[in-house]
Amino acid sequence: MARWEGNARGRLERAALDLFREQGYDGTTVVQITQRANLTERSFYRWFADKREVLFGDDDLEACYLPRIEAAPEGLGALPALLLAFASTPDVLRPRDFLLERAAVIAASPPLRERELIKMVTLSEKLVAALVRRGHDHQTASLAADVGSAVLRLATHRWLLGDDSDFSDLLATARRDLLDVAAEGPSTP
Amino acid sequence: MARWEGNARGRLERAALDLFREQGYDGTTVVQITQRANLTERSFYRWFADKREVLFGDDDLEACYLPRIEAAPEGLGALPALLLAFASTPDVLRPRDFLLERAAVIAASPPLRERELIKMVTLSEKLVAALVRRGHDHQTASLAADVGSAVLRLATHRWLLGDDSDFSDLLATARRDLLDVAAEGPSTP
Repeated sequence: MARWEGNARGRLERAALDLFREQGYDGTTVVQITQRANLTERSFYRWFADKREVLFGDDDLEACYLPRIEAAPEGLGALPALLLAFASTPDVLRPRDFLLERAAVIAASPPLRERELIKMVTLSEKLVAALVRRGHDHQTASLAADVGSAVLRLATHRWLLGDDSDFSDLLATARRDLLDVAAEGPSTP
Repeated sequence: MARWEGNARGRLERAALDLFREQGYDGTTVVQITQRANLTERSFYRWFADKREVLFGDDDLEACYLPRIEAAPEGLGALPALLLAFASTPDVLRPRDFLLERAAVIAASPPLRERELIKMVTLSEKLVAALVRRGHDHQTASLAADVGSAVLRLATHRWLLGDDSDFSDLLATARRDLLDVAAEGPSTP
């Protein structure tokens, strides 16, 4: 049952993304999505509040990161704790081709870009709260979330473009790249 | 004439902020704002598209930063060029008490928080584009904008809380704080 439902959700996501690309996000209805997926509207609303949430409905990243931050070894620094949690990102991401198509649909629609932003900021606020619960002061937690989000974005970008390195290594490289930029003196080297 | 108009705009902003605080953002109308400011609706719409834009209407930061990034000395690094431009931030900010009240109104309203986010991200994208025009590659420009935005946020926060240090010094301190967090090893010191 759970497995069938998982398939239904995946079929709805696939159908929605195909329709958004073929005829635009605005021109696509829930009925069209369910027809393409050969499922009922009732099945659609079991998973998603509306067609927008097909692109944003999963909270997998949050569910992946927060327990890992909580379980990080005591005494681990704020950013290292985040990067430890981020290392399992590829386990919860959708396949690359799906994510690239999703990114193209979102980039083409200002309201979807706004929704994506809100989602990222909401996640970032939860990361800050998780670090504060570990005993970090709010300023350190905020800076670590800012830096961590930038590092995660760059590592994910490289992963999406096909870099199959271990994700921990992608995070470590992105962190070094950020440090290079952040530490650069008044003149370019 | 220009001076009177400036006063009109300021009076509308002041009246709107007072009403938002007294009776909430949702419950306040443009008519109420103009009545409180003792001005006409026509005057209101000369400055603002709607009541929301009273809080977001100024593009002063962008107008302040972009020419300064463009005019930064050749060969200056990406982040140093941003920080040079950010140094003049207090010249264009509204008075502290106004900004603190504005921040409280925005924090209380999810749609206003979203609008604020969009504004910040739009600014950040323009910073990236300005750095790319200076010859930086897109990745360096993006990382510098991420780091620069975090540094600017922390410096502005301290300034808002009453720190009257030179803003360049606030930026330099915030940058050091960020570097400390970004460079921290696997264990807390």
